[in-house]
Amino acid sequence: MTSTLSALLSPRSVAIVGASDNIHKIGGRPIHYMQQMGYAGAIYPVNPQRDTLQGLRSYPSLDALPEAPDLAVIVVAGDAAVQAVADCARLGVNAAIVIASGFGEAGEAGKRQQDEMVRIARNANLRIVGPNSQGLANFGNGAIASFSTMFIEIAPQDGPVAVVSQSGGTAALVYGLLRNQGIGVRHVHATGNQADVTVSELALAVAHDPDVRLLLLYLETLNDPDVLAEAAAVARARGVPVVAVKSGRSQAGARAAASHTGAMANEDRAVDAFLARHGIWRVDDAHALARCAPLYLRGWQPGGRRLVVVSNSGASCVMATDTADTLGIEMAPLSAATQSALAERLPGFAATANPVDVTAALLTNSGLFGDVLPVVGADASADLVLLDIPVAGMGYDVPRFARDAAQFADQAGKPVAVAAWQESVASLFRAANVPTFFHAADALAAFDQLTAHQQLLRDIASEPARPALPAASSSLSSSSTAARTLSEAASLAHLAEAGVPVVEHYLCKTAEEAVAAWQRIGAPVAVKASSPAVPHKSEFGLVALHCDDRATIVDAFARQTQTLQSMHAPCEGVVVARMTRGRRECMVGAHWDPVFGAVLLVGDGGKYVETVGDTAVLLAPATPAAIERAVRRLRVAPLLDGVRGEAPLDVPALCALAARVGDLVHHAHGQIRSVDLNPVMLGESGAVVVDALMEIAG
Amino acid sequence: MTSTLSALLSPRSVAIVGASDNIHKIGGRPIHYMQQMGYAGAIYPVNPQRDTLQGLRSYPSLDALPEAPDLAVIVVAGDAAVQAVADCARLGVNAAIVIASGFGEAGEAGKRQQDEMVRIARNANLRIVGPNSQGLANFGNGAIASFSTMFIEIAPQDGPVAVVSQSGGTAALVYGLLRNQGIGVRHVHATGNQADVTVSELALAVAHDPDVRLLLLYLETLNDPDVLAEAAAVARARGVPVVAVKSGRSQAGARAAASHTGAMANEDRAVDAFLARHGIWRVDDAHALARCAPLYLRGWQPGGRRLVVVSNSGASCVMATDTADTLGIEMAPLSAATQSALAERLPGFAATANPVDVTAALLTNSGLFGDVLPVVGADASADLVLLDIPVAGMGYDVPRFARDAAQFADQAGKPVAVAAWQESVASLFRAANVPTFFHAADALAAFDQLTAHQQLLRDIASEPARPALPAASSSLSSSSTAARTLSEAASLAHLAEAGVPVVEHYLCKTAEEAVAAWQRIGAPVAVKASSPAVPHKSEFGLVALHCDDRATIVDAFARQTQTLQSMHAPCEGVVVARMTRGRRECMVGAHWDPVFGAVLLVGDGGKYVETVGDTAVLLAPATPAAIERAVRRLRVAPLLDGVRGEAPLDVPALCALAARVGDLVHHAHGQIRSVDLNPVMLGESGAVVVDALMEIAG
Repeated sequence: MTSTLSALLSPRSVAIVGASDNIHKIGGRPIHYMQQMGYAGAIYPVNPQRDTLQGLRSYPSLDALPEAPDLAVIVVAGDAAVQAVADCARLGVNAAIVIASGFGEAGEAGKRQQDEMVRIARNANLRIVGPNSQGLANFGNGAIASFSTMFIEIAPQDGPVAVVSQSGGTAALVYGLLRNQGIGVRHVHATGNQADVTVSELALAVAHDPDVRLLLLYLETLNDPDVLAEAAAVARARGVPVVAVKSGRSQAGARAAASHTGAMANEDRAVDAFLARHGIWRVDDAHALARCAPLYLRGWQPGGRRLVVVSNSGASCVMATDTADTLGIEMAPLSAATQSALAERLPGFAATANPVDVTAALLTNSGLFGDVLPVVGADASADLVLLDIPVAGMGYDVPRFARDAAQFADQAGKPVAVAAWQESVASLFRAANVPTFFHAADALAAFDQLTAHQQLLRDIASEPARPALPAASSSLSSSSTAARTLSEAASLAHLAEAGVPVVEHYLCKTAEEAVAAWQRIGAPVAVKASSPAVPHKSEFGLVALHCDDRATIVDAFARQTQTLQSMHAPCEGVVVARMTRGRRECMVGAHWDPVFGAVLLVGDGGKYVETVGDTAVLLAPATPAAIERAVRRLRVAPLLDGVRGEAPLDVPALCALAARVGDLVHHAHGQIRSVDLNPVMLGESGAVVVDALMEIAG
Repeated sequence: MTSTLSALLSPRSVAIVGASDNIHKIGGRPIHYMQQMGYAGAIYPVNPQRDTLQGLRSYPSLDALPEAPDLAVIVVAGDAAVQAVADCARLGVNAAIVIASGFGEAGEAGKRQQDEMVRIARNANLRIVGPNSQGLANFGNGAIASFSTMFIEIAPQDGPVAVVSQSGGTAALVYGLLRNQGIGVRHVHATGNQADVTVSELALAVAHDPDVRLLLLYLETLNDPDVLAEAAAVARARGVPVVAVKSGRSQAGARAAASHTGAMANEDRAVDAFLARHGIWRVDDAHALARCAPLYLRGWQPGGRRLVVVSNSGASCVMATDTADTLGIEMAPLSAATQSALAERLPGFAATANPVDVTAALLTNSGLFGDVLPVVGADASADLVLLDIPVAGMGYDVPRFARDAAQFADQAGKPVAVAAWQESVASLFRAANVPTFFHAADALAAFDQLTAHQQLLRDIASEPARPALPAASSSLSSSSTAARTLSEAASLAHLAEAGVPVVEHYLCKTAEEAVAAWQRIGAPVAVKASSPAVPHKSEFGLVALHCDDRATIVDAFARQTQTLQSMHAPCEGVVVARMTRGRRECMVGAHWDPVFGAVLLVGDGGKYVETVGDTAVLLAPATPAAIERAVRRLRVAPLLDGVRGEAPLDVPALCALAARVGDLVHHAHGQIRSVDLNPVMLGESGAVVVDALMEIAG
């Protein structure tokens, strides 16, 4: 446990300010839970109207307590809550959880109260969770400083999962979904408005908990990515998968989040890139957060993602095969030996290729699953096994199926999942610790997640150590200052200096210089006006392509300088650049994000780049290998390999170029606001920047 | 009911050949079900070893029955089953359901037995369901000629849904999923190997059932599309939505289907086009088949697809908003009047914009949902309402929430769905007839399906009446004969004759004719060798572009004719064609499918057409309007509108051209095997075929 948060997660004593005798009230529930869960520390109800409360002595005020409590849970609202925080600060309380809402999420007045609360706390080294928090619950030690009703709905059981959420509702929902599957949960924490303690900090703390084996996060905003990165690193080192929802993916969603907890919007594709970089698997919603837990907790590390489907319904075999195909999960090609072993065990009319349909013969031979599973599991091509049971119940020996599946799951070392929508069937498999899903599509989505997540973690492990992320927030201030555009010539010069390959070009201040440049290049050239004031030149006729004689070049120079003059734009001259042929116009971009630092874009380029929208986003610095992995997932990827007899394009050159651009923006630490390179001409040998536009701070 | 199938769906009497006294055996279960469900006709068990059976008189043979039964359920296997079919045929039985497996799906010998069975039956006008069938069940009249155990697992209740499935397991699964939600089911039919009666035929029969209001189909193969089209037309006329799974979408899935019921593979995108054309909504699997049922059955016809989300969790509001965005469902912009009405009803810190977070205040004010729903429902912008309840239970007045939601659902006339994963919560809403889903993503997917399906049906209703589909199967024979390629010149001539705009071109047999053609065109030309033996010319250097002087043209003619000679390919001469500029290279293709007839492709073209794979598939004949709707859904669609100041491209001209191509292939009725037009140059005014390749029968 991180020491500063130990008062929150392992408090020696807990005071409840606004305590209630009624266990159905917010001020009563935490006391009830702590007593029920065997919390070993002192519990101090604070309520001036009562002498005793839920069998405990009640105190009139924080001051009246026999000691300064380690943790205070503040249930009272408004000014009383601010006062309670001030009392805690004065008394040397280490941490406080402010339950009441009506602060930062509720307009200006509330925001001022919240700020005041934080100011008081910071001065006294008092850490605050909330306000507008459901509280924290640690079922490892019974410190349940939470009023969630879900702990009444579904009985708690300590276990290997930690849920850390900005939202109390979502924490309770994920807890409920996990417990509904019989999965034990250690931590259920909700940070609410995050005026002080964040999800990232609690994630870091629980990542150190040696009993935690799966970490599930719900984020509405992320403004301390370095802390979350550290939590992810701790988790990776311990082999603990981290799965996160970061909501507000859409603009409408981000607006909703802002009105909910005052969450600041993040650039969503940068969030994607950040989470991927740190091996945190991103899912879309709370249900998806809980979905893969049974597979993660078995600790399987499949060698690949080739699937075997076994079912007692041929149609379910076909549908699961289709679903696997959609997910890019290949069907394992069972060996001839496996198939003949299956033929010995299955009725004559059953299919022995993959998928394996044991048919309705299961009704008369209850051992079929048990016969078949070890055979397919032993096949070297089988990485994942789905047992899909769309129909069972009376007449079926489901307890035996569950025993056979459990034995296979324990012995095979390969992931196995059961799909069974009938609760009477599913519950037996779940009780036998076999990962069980409502339907095959869920199970296959979980297989997909498990294997893709593990691949991501392997990719990260294979990367050379990266320099630490810049403390991007330190340059937040600079983001409010003005930015200015560099001219084409200055942009190209910057890039060339940084080792980025740029087109052969010359900045020419006279027509004669332009002609001389063309002669030096010895090939057709582009003539482009260079002015920091006109970043988008083609719209104003400031680009002349394929110039290959003196008269054309002289004419282009004259027209472009005149045009700039008529626009009252400063003129540096013209850039004369070799006309470059590449087979594909690509794009490389980078910009400085106030939260995540340098964000890199690589993708298909050309005139329609925004409309086509086929780009990958990574955080910089990024290695060429990491960039190439992302590029290989673009829609355009098959074309890069060359089709219809074409030679492959030099993707490594593009990725090396992009890596340099990322490094450049990273090291500039906010001084370079953005770099927009389009097209980057990609050929069979090499990639080169043709057009460049940079924006710098100031 | 279709008269020929009335013996299957409403039999006057039912014989069970291979009857059992044991209700847990296949030969016992149908008898048990029929007696239990109050089947009013005569039940004749046939079992030579028994005198009575389940309280009924048992007969030694079909011959011993007091009458020829209307329907025979044949439980005996192998040769005995064939013999039973023969007995039925001899005795004038109208229909037989063959339960046993081990026929067409189990290799050559079984296939021969199956063929023999069908031959015997056809000669006697005896209709056969199966073999390898679970049987048919009609809960409207108690004729349960099915051995599914699912009717024991979940008690039947007659209702408005019909399930017709090739697979018995899937029929049972869908029945179970529906019944689990409290939805009544009338028909549960499984056709198995479909040696005779098909899903399409049964679908047509049940579409006429006046009590059926939703038709759910599972297909593994489709070889009588005209019958399914008729079923869809009957359903559309009655306002009955039809939803279908057609499995074997992937190649691996199609292989699995073939080994399961001997299903013949269909071209999957043609299946898509066929189903869409007839207003049948295609989903991916059995769970998806059942999912939208509660919404369909309420009969709501929303005017649009703008969504309001109401929840007691802010985070759930945000996640639902994100999910809606992913589905292309817009959040309804609530009016100022609505928002101020909400502000009067909600606590001060709650959000009154959409999504509407009633907050944990719901714990103290159980009327909040009831207060809020009519207000948002009355807003003109609200088409769909999601009530998302991630947390409830003790302390919440869920019965009141359910009453309020039910009242709103009954009065608002707008679709409302509840998301509640807690069964204790969901069951109350379901009991109140409010469509209820496990989580918000499911509910929103169902809203998406409901609205998109209704839009599809409106589109179909808006189309001019189309000529009937050709009876494509009649030309199946021609698909086995050889096909031959036409030359460029012949292909262009065919197209031009059919009114398809083609590039200005001349077939020239001498160099001088080629030069004369260039002079007539008066602009740069392409010179392309024309030979039926060399369909792909560029690979062999048989295309010269941008020719604009006599020498080049003479030279191209000489080289191309020499090349053809060296390839021993017949030479018709060269095509001299105007070099055509268009802003976008598109493609139009069509081919003759032995099942579906003329299949039309329209999309993005050019060299990378296969790799890019951005094409729409429709069945021909198709109207330009229908084609344009499909083209507007392509990835390339935004570019067609013109970006960055470009004028829009002439999409209507492209669609008119494609419609003509579709008509051409449709009317040729298999004589034209395929048409491949790429590029079709699309400009701001007009579209024109530049390269054409046709394949014809013979």
